[in-house]
Amino acid sequence: MEIKELLLQIGKKAKQAARKLPTLSTREKNKVLRLVAQNLRSQKAYLQEENQKDLDLARKKGLSAALIDRLTLSDKVIEAMAQGLEEVAALPDPVGEVVKMWRRPNGLWVGRMRIPLGVIAMIYESRPNVTIDAAGLCFKSGNAVILRGGSEAINSNLALARIFQEALQESGGPTEAVQVIPTTDRAAVQEMLKLEEYIDLIIPRGGEGLIRFVTENARMPVLKHFKGVCHVYVDRLADLEMAKRICFNAKVQRPGVCNAMETMLVHEAVAESFLPDMCEDFRRAGVEIRGCPRTCALVPWAKQATEEDWDAEYLDLILAVRVVKNMDEALDHIARWGSNHTETIVTTDYQRALRFLREVDASVVITNASTRFNDGGQLGLGAEIGISTTKLHAYGPMALEELTTTKFIVFGEGQIRE
Amino acid sequence: MEIKELLLQIGKKAKQAARKLPTLSTREKNKVLRLVAQNLRSQKAYLQEENQKDLDLARKKGLSAALIDRLTLSDKVIEAMAQGLEEVAALPDPVGEVVKMWRRPNGLWVGRMRIPLGVIAMIYESRPNVTIDAAGLCFKSGNAVILRGGSEAINSNLALARIFQEALQESGGPTEAVQVIPTTDRAAVQEMLKLEEYIDLIIPRGGEGLIRFVTENARMPVLKHFKGVCHVYVDRLADLEMAKRICFNAKVQRPGVCNAMETMLVHEAVAESFLPDMCEDFRRAGVEIRGCPRTCALVPWAKQATEEDWDAEYLDLILAVRVVKNMDEALDHIARWGSNHTETIVTTDYQRALRFLREVDASVVITNASTRFNDGGQLGLGAEIGISTTKLHAYGPMALEELTTTKFIVFGEGQIRE
Repeated sequence: MEIKELLLQIGKKAKQAARKLPTLSTREKNKVLRLVAQNLRSQKAYLQEENQKDLDLARKKGLSAALIDRLTLSDKVIEAMAQGLEEVAALPDPVGEVVKMWRRPNGLWVGRMRIPLGVIAMIYESRPNVTIDAAGLCFKSGNAVILRGGSEAINSNLALARIFQEALQESGGPTEAVQVIPTTDRAAVQEMLKLEEYIDLIIPRGGEGLIRFVTENARMPVLKHFKGVCHVYVDRLADLEMAKRICFNAKVQRPGVCNAMETMLVHEAVAESFLPDMCEDFRRAGVEIRGCPRTCALVPWAKQATEEDWDAEYLDLILAVRVVKNMDEALDHIARWGSNHTETIVTTDYQRALRFLREVDASVVITNASTRFNDGGQLGLGAEIGISTTKLHAYGPMALEELTTTKFIVFGEGQIRE
Repeated sequence: MEIKELLLQIGKKAKQAARKLPTLSTREKNKVLRLVAQNLRSQKAYLQEENQKDLDLARKKGLSAALIDRLTLSDKVIEAMAQGLEEVAALPDPVGEVVKMWRRPNGLWVGRMRIPLGVIAMIYESRPNVTIDAAGLCFKSGNAVILRGGSEAINSNLALARIFQEALQESGGPTEAVQVIPTTDRAAVQEMLKLEEYIDLIIPRGGEGLIRFVTENARMPVLKHFKGVCHVYVDRLADLEMAKRICFNAKVQRPGVCNAMETMLVHEAVAESFLPDMCEDFRRAGVEIRGCPRTCALVPWAKQATEEDWDAEYLDLILAVRVVKNMDEALDHIARWGSNHTETIVTTDYQRALRFLREVDASVVITNASTRFNDGGQLGLGAEIGISTTKLHAYGPMALEELTTTKFIVFGEGQIRE
């Protein structure tokens, strides 16, 4: 009952703040963002003190060195957060943009104006810098945000939110535009998912389990991606040197992320000239290969792939490889096993490139470049709050524009309907 | 179990059809739409025979004359459906449009291309013409559609779907792009709401009860509006003659629809000069007035409004009226009681007009024109499949563009990520 009431209050305050945010000018919002950046730097000692509480607890609990590293608010991480906010301040403000305007035969002017979504909730794990990154993007796009980070980062997250709120207060903005849920109680998440009257959108970021739990229990819309099973299809007419560079980059440059390649599809006409060489590069980089029978015939040290490998998001130095008869078989494989995340073709053939771009159903479809480019920053959105692999509202990396919608505005001069 | 299997099969077939639809050219799609229009006309006798079965049953069940009228496929209704399809054929095809394209510093070209959503399900009541209207819009925008109309129209709906499917077959398109659920069993709806693997979007159209049921039970996104509690605010600086024309039109021209005015807000400075005259017009048109105390003082025959009246969607010749102290009070009233549907201000003041357009949170915000213009056709979208009052994906009337999303397409020349 206490938790329920706490969440209800947080929801109500967020909704009140959300009514005020659209009235702030771009200049006022940017001023707040720059002030938060400044205060992150000047209050580094306070932040690191609060962060130390989380780190002490994490060590006591025996968390892995990798997790502790992700949890740490080092000087570098704090500076990166501050710079991130300054970059968001420099981005164009989507709110108030009239994306289109036209005139009707009766003289009415009709336009579509960008407006914030309202209240956005984020659920995420470990890294406390997400608190600032997400708060910055939501605030710039005129949305109030409710943040629920990992329980192991609770002190750090509360300290970061406090710095944001102090800057809001100093600037006369609504301090409750940014709120961190002040408890690690798991019941808080369940209560939050019921607040459909106060929360317009939930964005979960983390493992598949968290995302499924949110999707199944939330009463409000959810923007999410379950996983990234990304393919590179090396066509019969590929530039094989280019294919090697792209596939190597897609798998090895950062294997633990959702836009890394997990399955490589190779046209049978080039399998013999491409696969042994390519896999030798992979072997040297420590990549384990799980191949179809034809792959294993060409790469004797490869393991046999099972059907589960076509579905796997390894997030590791493991790669599934399949030789396909033709482009249709590659497209069928992608349609069957792909996760609508990122798909690449390598080909020198004009028509196949266009066909791939048109027919493949993924949030980002690429010709002749690495899958690793599915990222808001890399594609030129200036930032990223997550990647959506469902088609409603947003498909692909989401930044400021994706945190808005449009309303119709109509300028009349007394028109009535006949 | 049988129903469950039936729905699963329908979902699978729709998904298969949805994979083929994006590959049809605009010309091919328009040919199908025109052929359906032609066949509706040439198979009028068959349609009216099937419709007669529904009408006989409706009479036997004692349905009201109004409901029987809505159920009837008269010559006029059939011609209107045919013409509607020809109009949709003439509209621009959203699919394949690249809404934006830009170049990155590394030479990558990045674009956003419109694509269909996939499979859309519609649940609606009585009027069988919705079957053709919805199927036409979904097909043109490249989506497969699953239709569930009112049980009293089942024979008419199946006959209409058959005509659409025959045209698809004749043209070589996927016949399962348009399916009507061939049973009136209520369990079919519940099974449909569980098919999140096969259905990308559900659009319920009908009473608030139906829409709430769908929202609470659907596992996939729902586009809906619960109700339209639309206001006209007559400002202190309104042209009162214009205000009279607009308010009369908004209430009386067609009171049974969601964009009719339900509450009129009047600035106190003009209440005395405006309200008695205006209400006299309403009285003559048979409109019942439910007013705040100050309204009742000026219009002695008005009934006293209770708080429930501010929340009411009458859909009838009844109007709630409230005198407000100033524009802030009007904005607060709209924020508190509005349904995010349609809101109008009548004013000659430039700044108040702009402030209203900016600050009011509704899918269509209007200055100096009737609320009745919130309609896809009236606003120039060429058509309408429904009106959304929730902000995710679409806000306001929805037509072809709103039945699509965008994916990112990337043209590379061997780029990899450093």
